[in-house]
Amino acid sequence: MTNTPSVSASSPAVARAAEPGEHRPRSLSLLGLGAMGTALARTWLAAGHRVTVWNRTPARAEPLRALGATVAGSAAEAVAANDLVVLCLLDDASVGETLAGAELAGRDLVNLTTSTPADARVWADRAQAAGARFLDGGIMAVPPMIGVPEAGGYVFYSGSAELFAAHQEILAVPAGARYVGEDAGLAALHDVALLSAMSGMFAGITHAFALVREADVDLGGFSGLLADWLVAMARVAVTEDQHAQKAEQGEDQGDVASNLAMQVAGNATLLRTAEQQGVSAELLTPYMELMERAVAEGHGDRDGSVLVELLTAH
Amino acid sequence: MTNTPSVSASSPAVARAAEPGEHRPRSLSLLGLGAMGTALARTWLAAGHRVTVWNRTPARAEPLRALGATVAGSAAEAVAANDLVVLCLLDDASVGETLAGAELAGRDLVNLTTSTPADARVWADRAQAAGARFLDGGIMAVPPMIGVPEAGGYVFYSGSAELFAAHQEILAVPAGARYVGEDAGLAALHDVALLSAMSGMFAGITHAFALVREADVDLGGFSGLLADWLVAMARVAVTEDQHAQKAEQGEDQGDVASNLAMQVAGNATLLRTAEQQGVSAELLTPYMELMERAVAEGHGDRDGSVLVELLTAH
Ligand SMILES: NC(=O)c1ccc[n+]([C@@H]2O[C@H](COP(=O)([O-])OP(=O)(O)OC[C@H]3O[C@@H](n4cnc5c(N)ncnc54)[C@H](OP(=O)(O)O)[C@@H]3O)[C@@H](O)[C@H]2O)c1
Ligand SMILES: NC(=O)c1ccc[n+]([C@@H]2O[C@H](COP(=O)([O-])OP(=O)(O)OC[C@H]3O[C@@H](n4cnc5c(N)ncnc54)[C@H](OP(=O)(O)O)[C@@H]3O)[C@@H](O)[C@H]2O)c1
Repeated sequence: MTNTPSVSASSPAVARAAEPGEHRPRSLSLLGLGAMGTALARTWLAAGHRVTVWNRTPARAEPLRALGATVAGSAAEAVAANDLVVLCLLDDASVGETLAGAELAGRDLVNLTTSTPADARVWADRAQAAGARFLDGGIMAVPPMIGVPEAGGYVFYSGSAELFAAHQEILAVPAGARYVGEDAGLAALHDVALLSAMSGMFAGITHAFALVREADVDLGGFSGLLADWLVAMARVAVTEDQHAQKAEQGEDQGDVASNLAMQVAGNATLLRTAEQQGVSAELLTPYMELMERAVAEGHGDRDGSVLVELLTAH
Repeated sequence: MTNTPSVSASSPAVARAAEPGEHRPRSLSLLGLGAMGTALARTWLAAGHRVTVWNRTPARAEPLRALGATVAGSAAEAVAANDLVVLCLLDDASVGETLAGAELAGRDLVNLTTSTPADARVWADRAQAAGARFLDGGIMAVPPMIGVPEAGGYVFYSGSAELFAAHQEILAVPAGARYVGEDAGLAALHDVALLSAMSGMFAGITHAFALVREADVDLGGFSGLLADWLVAMARVAVTEDQHAQKAEQGEDQGDVASNLAMQVAGNATLLRTAEQQGVSAELLTPYMELMERAVAEGHGDRDGSVLVELLTAH
């Protein structure tokens, strides 16, 4: 099977799309034309592929029809139109509703809807029972990054290695394709882990802008400083956590650059500043409480990597 | 006053240290030799300056004595030893305790302890009443970044422009010096805003590592992907919030790439994944609840920038 991608979860390689002209036109169906589905469809059409689209609210298909897409009258019709069927719907429930009346036998189903690992495994089993192949995908990009290779967006894929090998080229058109393993749940696990981290970061950014919004601070300058700071600290924190988790080490971490006792003292400063600026601290308090719990359990001289363990139920 | 730095909060320029050999040796006192104070002291000693140090627990001064520092017997003695007195203590309360018996008249006090804007303004007033000049500082670096210009760390300064002008060169030795205004509270406001955002990001990273820690995921590869993702999304989010806050616009934001209704649907996926992996979702829920509140108030078609307003009490 020379065409099968390597099935390793470690540093998965990214497949990128071929240059225009290099590829042969292929056909696919796409169900779901929200902000993300529409962005995907545009890139496949622009690359010269034949795209059949369907959306629950038909009006959203019209701009794509104008760009050359075929508009299916029903989800079942869209699924029947092509071997390769891509879904980009709101959530797992909408995927269930959409595929309810469709004949899946012989299809290559690719679900780009954000899902849980368990959802993805259920679909892999259903597809197999129906005589279809299944690949789950998690999109690591916002719509403006789709079709813009320099933006660095990509999609995690897991599930059928054969399906991925067969369609890798067309799947890599909207954004890089990163295969992370045969277990269909692995793409969702990677996706949700990265989205969860982003959600925390967005919470922090929201709080930061709330703090300065009524102060005499130039927002352009502040925004740049904030982004640069988060970029620098993302690398520091991720490296710290990676080391701690990899080593699964006990108490001896060597020199601790930012101990939890100091960070807990800093929490009080963060809370009082929020109060002074009239900003609710609700987005920050659970992490502060977790740090306080760690200090109470005797980890005041450790760094934040010890918190990962405390978050896991045993 | 040609020597006075520009007193503008917008895109503050960073002063960097002169090359070794360019500067004349100066004297300063440093109170507080924790992880950060020790890192600061080492860079001043390495640059050939005369440093008098003091720490509550005397043993922490010994490694610096070996590097040429003078060790003061009390905080008051350290304050008396030099015009320029730098503090890097745990929190504002420890600054109060430490300076309680010291004679401040004629001193140039620089407080690098993480403080609230109000703390900083109180110290500026006390210093003025005592016949001293005052500068507040907020360190945007972890100790391993101190003395490593490539690491990009810097210190926000606000308060006496004359003090900053007089000592700018020596203050820029450990990390870049970024003056943000005469209002002594502005450095702390910038500092705490960036720290708050970082705290949210760290919460998210903690959750992400907890999700994958018992899964078949290579942590080295995962860590790199997580850092890259946060770096890309920090720029996206900060730009989004900056635009929204700057324009103070109402409902019309044009095309929304990631609407809140979709993000709220994603929340359920994040929560169910946490449950599947045995991870507490406590760090993520307040931001989810804020998004849900925004959707309930009719902002489902807006993006996350609308949340800043909801966090501010009126
Ligand atoms: N936008 C992003 O930043 C982004 C980034 C990464 C991943 N994603 C993921 O991509 C997927 C789509 O997101 P989006 O931004 O395109 O969302 P969106 O703009 O809100 O569009 C949602 C899509 O789902 C459809 N839908 C909702 N409920 C349905 C149901 N019960 N049956 C059939 N169709 C239904 C909608 O159809 P109608 O037009 O009829 O409402 C629409 O096509 C989500 O899983 C999201 O997590 C989005
Ligand atoms: N480390 C970082 O990553 C980092 C980054 C940016 C800013 N900062 C800020 O830098 C400051 C120092 O942090 P750090 O990392 O050096 O903390 P640290 O390693 O925990 O050291 C704390 C220092 O404060 C002293 N101290 C505590 N309570 C005191 C009191 N009541 N009276 C006198 N001295 C007292 C300690 O003296 P003893 O030795 O006697 O306990 C020690 O010198 C904090 O404001 C922190 O927020 C730290």
